[in-house]
Amino acid sequence: MLQSKLFYKTSKDISLEEKSVNAQLLIRAGFVDKLMAGVYTFLPLGLRVLEKIKKIIREEMNAIGGQEILMPALTPKENWTTTGRWDSIDVLFKLKGSGGKEYALGSTHEEIVTPLAKKIINSYKDLPLAVYQIQDKFRDEPRAKSGLLRGREFSMKDLYSFHADLADLDQYYEKAKEAYLKIFKRCGIEAIVVEASGGTFSKYSHEFQVLTESGEDIIFYCEKCSYAQNKEIAGYKAGDKCPKCGGKMLEGKAIEVGNIFKLKNKFSEAFDLNFLDKDGKKNLVMMGCYGIGPSRILGTVAEISHDENGIIWPVEIAPFDVHLLALFGKDSKVNEKINKESSRLQESLQKAGFEVLYDDRESVSAGVKFGESDLFGIPTRLVISEKTLAKDSVELKIRAGNEAELVKLNKIEKELGK
Amino acid sequence: MLQSKLFYKTSKDISLEEKSVNAQLLIRAGFVDKLMAGVYTFLPLGLRVLEKIKKIIREEMNAIGGQEILMPALTPKENWTTTGRWDSIDVLFKLKGSGGKEYALGSTHEEIVTPLAKKIINSYKDLPLAVYQIQDKFRDEPRAKSGLLRGREFSMKDLYSFHADLADLDQYYEKAKEAYLKIFKRCGIEAIVVEASGGTFSKYSHEFQVLTESGEDIIFYCEKCSYAQNKEIAGYKAGDKCPKCGGKMLEGKAIEVGNIFKLKNKFSEAFDLNFLDKDGKKNLVMMGCYGIGPSRILGTVAEISHDENGIIWPVEIAPFDVHLLALFGKDSKVNEKINKESSRLQESLQKAGFEVLYDDRESVSAGVKFGESDLFGIPTRLVISEKTLAKDSVELKIRAGNEAELVKLNKIEKELGK
Repeated sequence: MLQSKLFYKTSKDISLEEKSVNAQLLIRAGFVDKLMAGVYTFLPLGLRVLEKIKKIIREEMNAIGGQEILMPALTPKENWTTTGRWDSIDVLFKLKGSGGKEYALGSTHEEIVTPLAKKIINSYKDLPLAVYQIQDKFRDEPRAKSGLLRGREFSMKDLYSFHADLADLDQYYEKAKEAYLKIFKRCGIEAIVVEASGGTFSKYSHEFQVLTESGEDIIFYCEKCSYAQNKEIAGYKAGDKCPKCGGKMLEGKAIEVGNIFKLKNKFSEAFDLNFLDKDGKKNLVMMGCYGIGPSRILGTVAEISHDENGIIWPVEIAPFDVHLLALFGKDSKVNEKINKESSRLQESLQKAGFEVLYDDRESVSAGVKFGESDLFGIPTRLVISEKTLAKDSVELKIRAGNEAELVKLNKIEKELGK
Repeated sequence: MLQSKLFYKTSKDISLEEKSVNAQLLIRAGFVDKLMAGVYTFLPLGLRVLEKIKKIIREEMNAIGGQEILMPALTPKENWTTTGRWDSIDVLFKLKGSGGKEYALGSTHEEIVTPLAKKIINSYKDLPLAVYQIQDKFRDEPRAKSGLLRGREFSMKDLYSFHADLADLDQYYEKAKEAYLKIFKRCGIEAIVVEASGGTFSKYSHEFQVLTESGEDIIFYCEKCSYAQNKEIAGYKAGDKCPKCGGKMLEGKAIEVGNIFKLKNKFSEAFDLNFLDKDGKKNLVMMGCYGIGPSRILGTVAEISHDENGIIWPVEIAPFDVHLLALFGKDSKVNEKINKESSRLQESLQKAGFEVLYDDRESVSAGVKFGESDLFGIPTRLVISEKTLAKDSVELKIRAGNEAELVKLNKIEKELGK
């Protein structure tokens, strides 16, 4: 991609109404645009990150037998009155269409997936089963001021699993937990598994929390072992002993990036989703649900992985692998050579499988280019100038590091392949 | 993919309320599920087709310089009052959130993309520019009874182009027209470019129409040349002479699968989207918009490409390349061998780059398997049974054809590669 053609604009300042660090950084770097509080447009750079996060999620959900489907956002009122959640979910967006028909915009999809599964599940032979989707959810947040961490419209992956009995649900739940940890790791996030309220049916649900000062949740976590609980349910205070290992429990703010929940028969009962067991007897299906927010992960990474100059993207979700900057001077013949060598390098890197953003702009100063490169946060920066070409070299700098080094042009692919 | 694990259910009959042929076929084959009138869930098979259509669209939009972005579905009222369309679009879904804030669910995105472009376009150097997105649109259709052809929620690709002058818009418009024809061709659709109303600003817009009895539009088209007009604007009747070549104009029903429109300065004027030209003078940006419905394409293909047994998918958008059926008998040792050979064939075909759905179910009759295979409409069907294995062969049948033939197991990849 040529940066001269890229649809973006960086800015030094952003409007004062945007308080969250993640949205500030993402807007300044031209990754997202704010349409209104809690609602953002993904520009090309931001969308590339979002799609990479979704790709990781898809791979890990497919790996645990999840089958991708796509349910609508527009859902009929009837499904929500069946479970009583038309009234109990206070952030549900409701609307009325022509003919007086009432709808909700899905904030979650148990009300849709359960009656759908009922059409397909008849026998124990149809179980277990897991389906998931990635689409936009809607929540009528009264205060949407955390950027991409709490949106009115936001990207969501929700997986639903169906089981013949609790033991099978338990087993799958643990598999999903592991899959979630893999996803966060690949996204460059260190997530803590935190016990949280299990509602009326389960003792606990589990949240995946990322410690950071900007988090809206408060968790207690053991300084020694991996045990953690959400403050909302914790029966102790900071400084108490860990009930698992005796270590000290610390208190911290955290962002919830995922949540898994044993629904058991809560929804299968509401929609009479049952199956015939081996003895021909009817049983309610056991269900689990597993949510993860791609756009929230993106916001979380911006929140926890940046310095004063901009975001530092983890390799697997970076918008590009390499940011190639050409520094042009006043001599048009020299500039021609710089552009030729840069284009050649871009092409050979792309052939080798790297995604390259090439800053080919002639009329932009080196200072602006370096500044934007730091804002973008692409893992590897390469600079070609008259000086580097005099040494048949390109300057290489890792965004997360401090030192730049000269690498011979014919060695660069090998260097990056390391 | 193993069919025994696939999340689907075929049915012989579907509810009488579903009148459209496309939805009937897609529901019967387990590609989609109807949530309510005009709103469908994509099941794994249907989603695979939808994603392939989107992939084709992305490739062709990228090829004409389109940059992908993602705008929200939830949009603020203010943007729509600026253009007056809050009141004039009668199918706009409107809703009120907490604090009385009013929103529309996007049925189109000129009101969002124009102010966005205003933040990025300053100078003639920023032009031309083209951005597109693929996301769900919403329309409060009073009568949604055409299946996937006219939904209340439906998938849409909308591209918007920005130009310094009309000549540049005209040129890009023709490029987009060619790209659209490529998309339809790759999706196995023969689309006619039809002149349609250009609104207040242009003489004509252009629709891409597919002739079929179930179409909701009526067009006149020349039997000789490619000229066509929508009946709404046509100044002649069926049987008249073609104004281009003198051939006879025929009348036909058609489905609109795409629409392109020269907006000129209609929206740039409303949002004051201007740029500085080479002389430092302010000018309004010229705009074009280009819409295409992936879910509508899917419905259209079902509508025009089927026989009495089910859908016949064009190769490039088929959910799988190969449907491999294993026909089991009563002898468990023989069955073991059939499954082993089938699994081996599935694996080697997959390694060779084919997407294979393997019907591995032991307790299902050959009749049911053949019936479902026809319903699914996967281009190539392979059958392995005791009989075919006795000849070291597999039975090959093309879904669109009538004849089955035996092919040696070790020749099948070569045969399919043709």
